[in-house]
Amino acid sequence: MIRILAYSKSGELHEDLPLNEIKQKRSELAWYWVDFNKPTKKEAEELYQMGFHELAIQDCLHLQQRTKLDDYEDYHFFVLNAIDQKNLRPKEIDIFQHQQYVVTFHYKEQPEIDAVWDCMKKDSNAQSLGSRYICYKIMDKVADSFFPLAEKLEDRITAIGVRPEVTGRMQKQMNELFHIRRSLLRLRHVIWPFRDLVFRITQSEHLSGKGEERRYYMDVYDYLLKLSTMIDSSRDMTSDIRDNHISLNSNRMNSIMMTLTVITTIFMPLTFIAGIYGMNFEYMPELKWHYGYFFVLGCMFAISIGMFLWFKHKGWFFKE
Amino acid sequence: MIRILAYSKSGELHEDLPLNEIKQKRSELAWYWVDFNKPTKKEAEELYQMGFHELAIQDCLHLQQRTKLDDYEDYHFFVLNAIDQKNLRPKEIDIFQHQQYVVTFHYKEQPEIDAVWDCMKKDSNAQSLGSRYICYKIMDKVADSFFPLAEKLEDRITAIGVRPEVTGRMQKQMNELFHIRRSLLRLRHVIWPFRDLVFRITQSEHLSGKGEERRYYMDVYDYLLKLSTMIDSSRDMTSDIRDNHISLNSNRMNSIMMTLTVITTIFMPLTFIAGIYGMNFEYMPELKWHYGYFFVLGCMFAISIGMFLWFKHKGWFFKE
Amino acid sequence: MIRILAYSKSGELHEDLPLNEIKQKRSELAWYWVDFNKPTKKEAEELYQMGFHELAIQDCLHLQQRTKLDDYEDYHFFVLNAIDQKNLRPKEIDIFQHQQYVVTFHYKEQPEIDAVWDCMKKDSNAQSLGSRYICYKIMDKVADSFFPLAEKLEDRITAIGVRPEVTGRMQKQMNELFHIRRSLLRLRHVIWPFRDLVFRITQSEHLSGKGEERRYYMDVYDYLLKLSTMIDSSRDMTSDIRDNHISLNSNRMNSIMMTLTVITTIFMPLTFIAGIYGMNFEYMPELKWHYGYFFVLGCMFAISIGMFLWFKHKGWFFKE
Amino acid sequence: MIRILAYSKSGELHEDLPLNEIKQKRSELAWYWVDFNKPTKKEAEELYQMGFHELAIQDCLHLQQRTKLDDYEDYHFFVLNAIDQKNLRPKEIDIFQHQQYVVTFHYKEQPEIDAVWDCMKKDSNAQSLGSRYICYKIMDKVADSFFPLAEKLEDRITAIGVRPEVTGRMQKQMNELFHIRRSLLRLRHVIWPFRDLVFRITQSEHLSGKGEERRYYMDVYDYLLKLSTMIDSSRDMTSDIRDNHISLNSNRMNSIMMTLTVITTIFMPLTFIAGIYGMNFEYMPELKWHYGYFFVLGCMFAISIGMFLWFKHKGWFFKE
Amino acid sequence: MIRILAYSKSGELHEDLPLNEIKQKRSELAWYWVDFNKPTKKEAEELYQMGFHELAIQDCLHLQQRTKLDDYEDYHFFVLNAIDQKNLRPKEIDIFQHQQYVVTFHYKEQPEIDAVWDCMKKDSNAQSLGSRYICYKIMDKVADSFFPLAEKLEDRITAIGVRPEVTGRMQKQMNELFHIRRSLLRLRHVIWPFRDLVFRITQSEHLSGKGEERRYYMDVYDYLLKLSTMIDSSRDMTSDIRDNHISLNSNRMNSIMMTLTVITTIFMPLTFIAGIYGMNFEYMPELKWHYGYFFVLGCMFAISIGMFLWFKHKGWFFKE
Ligand SMILES: [Mg+2]
Ligand SMILES: [Mg+2]
Ligand SMILES: [Mg+2]
Ligand SMILES: [Mg+2]
Ligand SMILES: [Mg+2]
Ligand SMILES: [Mg+2]
Ligand SMILES: [Mg+2]
Ligand SMILES: [Mg+2]
Ligand SMILES: [Mg+2]
Ligand SMILES: [Mg+2]
Ligand SMILES: [Mg+2]
Ligand SMILES: [Mg+2]
Ligand SMILES: [Mg+2]
Ligand SMILES: [Mg+2]
Ligand SMILES: [Mg+2]
Ligand SMILES: [Mg+2]
Ligand SMILES: [Mg+2]
Ligand SMILES: [Mg+2]
Ligand SMILES: [Mg+2]
Ligand SMILES: [Mg+2]
Ligand SMILES: [Mg+2]
Ligand SMILES: [Mg+2]
Ligand SMILES: [Mg+2]
Ligand SMILES: [Mg+2]
Ligand SMILES: [Mg+2]
Ligand SMILES: [Mg+2]
Ligand SMILES: [Mg+2]
Ligand SMILES: [Mg+2]
Ligand SMILES: [Mg+2]
Ligand SMILES: [Mg+2]
Ligand SMILES: [Mg+2]
Repeated sequence: MIRILAYSKSGELHEDLPLNEIKQKRSELAWYWVDFNKPTKKEAEELYQMGFHELAIQDCLHLQQRTKLDDYEDYHFFVLNAIDQKNLRPKEIDIFQHQQYVVTFHYKEQPEIDAVWDCMKKDSNAQSLGSRYICYKIMDKVADSFFPLAEKLEDRITAIGVRPEVTGRMQKQMNELFHIRRSLLRLRHVIWPFRDLVFRITQSEHLSGKGEERRYYMDVYDYLLKLSTMIDSSRDMTSDIRDNHISLNSNRMNSIMMTLTVITTIFMPLTFIAGIYGMNFEYMPELKWHYGYFFVLGCMFAISIGMFLWFKHKGWFFKE
Repeated sequence: MIRILAYSKSGELHEDLPLNEIKQKRSELAWYWVDFNKPTKKEAEELYQMGFHELAIQDCLHLQQRTKLDDYEDYHFFVLNAIDQKNLRPKEIDIFQHQQYVVTFHYKEQPEIDAVWDCMKKDSNAQSLGSRYICYKIMDKVADSFFPLAEKLEDRITAIGVRPEVTGRMQKQMNELFHIRRSLLRLRHVIWPFRDLVFRITQSEHLSGKGEERRYYMDVYDYLLKLSTMIDSSRDMTSDIRDNHISLNSNRMNSIMMTLTVITTIFMPLTFIAGIYGMNFEYMPELKWHYGYFFVLGCMFAISIGMFLWFKHKGWFFKE
Repeated sequence: MIRILAYSKSGELHEDLPLNEIKQKRSELAWYWVDFNKPTKKEAEELYQMGFHELAIQDCLHLQQRTKLDDYEDYHFFVLNAIDQKNLRPKEIDIFQHQQYVVTFHYKEQPEIDAVWDCMKKDSNAQSLGSRYICYKIMDKVADSFFPLAEKLEDRITAIGVRPEVTGRMQKQMNELFHIRRSLLRLRHVIWPFRDLVFRITQSEHLSGKGEERRYYMDVYDYLLKLSTMIDSSRDMTSDIRDNHISLNSNRMNSIMMTLTVITTIFMPLTFIAGIYGMNFEYMPELKWHYGYFFVLGCMFAISIGMFLWFKHKGWFFKE
Repeated sequence: MIRILAYSKSGELHEDLPLNEIKQKRSELAWYWVDFNKPTKKEAEELYQMGFHELAIQDCLHLQQRTKLDDYEDYHFFVLNAIDQKNLRPKEIDIFQHQQYVVTFHYKEQPEIDAVWDCMKKDSNAQSLGSRYICYKIMDKVADSFFPLAEKLEDRITAIGVRPEVTGRMQKQMNELFHIRRSLLRLRHVIWPFRDLVFRITQSEHLSGKGEERRYYMDVYDYLLKLSTMIDSSRDMTSDIRDNHISLNSNRMNSIMMTLTVITTIFMPLTFIAGIYGMNFEYMPELKWHYGYFFVLGCMFAISIGMFLWFKHKGWFFKE
Repeated sequence: MIRILAYSKSGELHEDLPLNEIKQKRSELAWYWVDFNKPTKKEAEELYQMGFHELAIQDCLHLQQRTKLDDYEDYHFFVLNAIDQKNLRPKEIDIFQHQQYVVTFHYKEQPEIDAVWDCMKKDSNAQSLGSRYICYKIMDKVADSFFPLAEKLEDRITAIGVRPEVTGRMQKQMNELFHIRRSLLRLRHVIWPFRDLVFRITQSEHLSGKGEERRYYMDVYDYLLKLSTMIDSSRDMTSDIRDNHISLNSNRMNSIMMTLTVITTIFMPLTFIAGIYGMNFEYMPELKWHYGYFFVLGCMFAISIGMFLWFKHKGWFFKE
């Protein structure tokens, strides 16, 4: 769908201008905004009619371009990536920013653009704001949309905590950590280039205007810088949690091995002795002794006590 | 609570001036300091009355802004993060520094600001010092407050030492290491941006003044640089301790596995032989031999000695 | 084979000019392209006849030169590396770019060069395009040839998934990961220097021309930058998958060890008791008791229940 | 102790001038050197009498300042860290370098300063050398004192070698590695900032003089650069040795596990069979067979041979 | 041994000029080359007679200086490190490059210098080449000598391959990897600073001359850059191989543990049951049953089948 929002110099709002009329009426308009909202193939081809550069149009038509800013003679071409709140995949937004107009192009639903659209329609002094303000507003909304995601990931990290209780839950936690790290990586791949783009805008008087407007872009930049710190810090935390889990796991194994060794060490010789006196030789003098049985039981008891004390002394005895 | 400290040009101290009178009396005052100390929502809105920029005010009202410095026409706006001594979370301080006045804003108790407040009230030549000195003093106090934390973490690392004694304590040490690393990460996230901010101040004549004043800021910077080296070094130590623990753990396991193997290897064949002569077959000629029992005992003894010597030779015998 | 494509100033296409005639006819030609396509040793020596610098010729003759750009008096010398789609090894392409002509040199089949060759032969306004356009076209095709490889590797990473099911498949997955990482490393070693070379071209007016042509090189650069981000991100994913697999493996081992310990701990004492009453001492009072057998069975049952409950309490019992 | 070394313009050596006379005689002196050698608290306060800046004096009085260089109006203030040869802890040296005099301040014994002191006392053309030369000489001696430490650490790394022989020694080697890494970290924390300080001196004509003197500082810098490369390289070696040890350990465990499995797998079924024929059922027909015993022995032998061959085939048999 | 090669301006070659005559004849010579080839202590002291700076001479006399370039008034002083082909240790070469002469100094056999020496003696237009050409030639030969080493290491890495077959060979491979990594580290420590030195030469018109000569140095630089990429890539490969080996090892252990657990789990209860009926209680009713023995055998069979199916279901059964 192609939708158009235009303010005439006299301050009237036009929403029903067809795309092919807008060029003729350009001199009467304060500014206008053309939004290619999930355009069909045929609608997308209108971009060629609007006289944009072929390379820029191709970047629009092919998905998954990198976040960037290209300068053409009388307009700037931005590629942004918003983020899909469900699967954290980038959702491309392409923007042509001319002094008089803005053209936005996106194949996917973009609630951030809808919000700015509504705001521009209802804002009483919208006519005095220009194309630069619309771009700022879109970037601001997109930046705002990252924060809940980063915060949710931080909460999930905190929820994992430090001390896993049982082996079963531990593996679940490791898988959870893995998914969190993958999400952080995705967020990072969207936010880093966006942050660098916004920084580049703040450094260019051409793009961000003087004093006052520049401050608004600086605010978006601050926000993105804060976000990137949160994400770096979250990645560091996940590494540390994983290392701690692995060490804990290894410690448990150690402790289980000890138990196994202690049991084997105590019972193997005892069972062997019992096996000896279970043999059926005709001539085994001990078997005839009246207190032979009790004597052997006593020996077994002594051996087990001795081994217990020896383990105690070695510090090998089971302690968790 | 909003509290005000003002020195008139004649050197008198005023503590009871209401906020709305201060603008009228500005020409009579040498300097004044307004502290928004844990302000209520209504008190916080006074910031709008004081004519600050909307973006700066929003940074005050929203928590967890990043440490930064913004220049406005006739004042500077700082966001600092002191640190909560209990949980090592950042505690935001916002400062507006004008040539004639300072406005500080913080939602949490800030002992560092209270200390500077008292000092300015009692200092005999306070009147001759200006807004820039107050800012320096606050940053100096905040920087000082980091040191005991970093030192305590270093002490805890030293206390862990190198050689853990038992498995049980080892896991406690690993958890302790994990908590230390998390604390170092938190300290780092507060100190790094603060250090960079102070460096930026020392580089700007506007902010740190000439020669003499710049030296005091350089001293704060030195201090923060020393702190960041301490923290980096502590993180390196914790990594090394963790690696050492893991290797030690793996070594113990190896040694326990050997013991288990030696025992199993010695007793299994002996027990098997005893089992053989415990079978109830009617025709088992060895059972009838007069010295059969003693011969079998001798064989068992020979087998165990042989295996003992073989393990000794393989270097597998238990040594810790 | 040496093949030549030449356009006369009058727009005629010549394909049958021999190499030694071309110098004489130079003034009549708009531009020409000499392609050394898998040249024999003797054909390769023609380079000396064409008057190129000795160092450049040696770089042609020796394989595996690094990607680079050297400026000579009236021509540029490029070394590119395309990639072999089978084994991902670099396939060198050497290009001499003069204002009037292009010489390409490659010992291996290069489908990208064939494609550009055909395109130049058939393009109706080929005569107006020059040597610089041919170079751009070759680089564009080479860059395009990397994308399917990077995407296939991404698909293989996705196919591994997160949760391996059985031990046997796991090792296969680790080997697969290892091969993917090796492929990524190879791609990286071809793409990084290529990307940097293209960037250098875009920065030089001499090489990329003004405005319009520079934009086409920028587009190649964008593409390569996107590719390098994909590769970095894939490497990060493989690290995380490997770490997750290792942790899962260690967890399984832990869980198996527990099972082993539980079994040993329960049956060893029971078997020992059975061994005791299997001894053949003449005087063993319990054997005479009428309910001795049932009493011992009861004891065994009680011991096993006790140990089961103790393990349950310790949280050691088998759960996956 | 405060000691003073002064040369009059006429070339005489004075060693007994008291500190309070030196200011009056300044015009007669070529240069003088005041050394605060392990000063008492009262002696340290003499620094205030000498008119140095308060911040510099505080850096002297408080220990563990970071290595740095501060410029004051007519003198430079250096903080160096020599190293304690025993525990590798930094030992602070503070230097005030004025055109006419040097003041050194250190709370600990500094053999490097003593050596320079003796050298200045005995050198025949000492009078013609100035304060800058003394500073260079001290830094040169301090840099020289690092080398034996770095070399000793390299020797200890070489002594560990690659292939540990027994488990017991292995843990000792890991602890040794850990201590070496800690020492390397300490050396690094002293040498890096010192290297950067010397580099800064070589870049400043003010500090290192022209041509000739600068070369001497460049030589110290070369030396420190070589040292830092040695330390980096040693750290890399220790990482690699540790990784190799861990892999070796894991390999041994694997091999021990195999032995254990082979033994268990062979003897468990044999012992089970022996147990079967040790049962006391009244009706067990095999027991009556005349060659039953030998038949069972044969079966057992066949089973063990079969399993041996199967393990051989699986490549699981014990090989070290 | 000190050897001298001199060309008079008239083009004659002198090989027998003694060192002390050369200064007098300087005006008649086109250029000369003095090579201190493994000099004795006394020969080395001749450097002082030739008037070089003391610091440069000391760098010659002391071994293991870092690779560098120092500028003196009328000569340059280079320290290079060739590499010992046997043990990969650096072998220092010191070069004084003056407009008219070259002095080379080395304590060890240097085949690269011998090769250049022969070449200069035999080259027909050697007289027209100058000192700068000799330096270029030496660096070129030294750079060439690194390549076979790097390639041999790459071949050894390839020989290790990915999939180790047996435990015994695996440890050998890990030791081999460790030695390869150590060799790569040594190569790296020689090649990196050499590469940077050559780059510095190419950037200085003074050192590499204009256009043509600079190109030859650029060629050496290309070569060293290619080498450093090979070494980095080899290190990455060794890391990946090691990680793969460790994962494979851990997988084998897992699989062996499973086998052990399955065997223990199946035979322990069977052996226990056999132990029960081997007890000698007088009253054990089952022993009297006519088919008791077969019933117990049947039970044992059922238990083992049940456990087999349970393991199959759990996916724990042995698969490699
Ligand atoms: Mg990116
Ligand atoms: Mg960041
Ligand atoms: Mg940041
Ligand atoms: Mg961070
Ligand atoms: Mg970390
Ligand atoms: Mg930060
Ligand atoms: Mg730092
Ligand atoms: Mg530092
Ligand atoms: Mg540091
Ligand atoms: Mg460090
Ligand atoms: Mg470390
Ligand atoms: Mg780490
Ligand atoms: Mg590369
Ligand atoms: Mg990128
Ligand atoms: Mg990149
Ligand atoms: Mg990345
Ligand atoms: Mg990662
Ligand atoms: Mg990693
Ligand atoms: Mg440091
Ligand atoms: Mg270094
Ligand atoms: Mg270096
Ligand atoms: Mg280094
Ligand atoms: Mg290194
Ligand atoms: Mg390493
Ligand atoms: Mg180096
Ligand atoms: Mg390279
Ligand atoms: Mg490199
Ligand atoms: Mg590289
Ligand atoms: Mg690499
Ligand atoms: Mg790697
Ligand atoms: Mg790694």
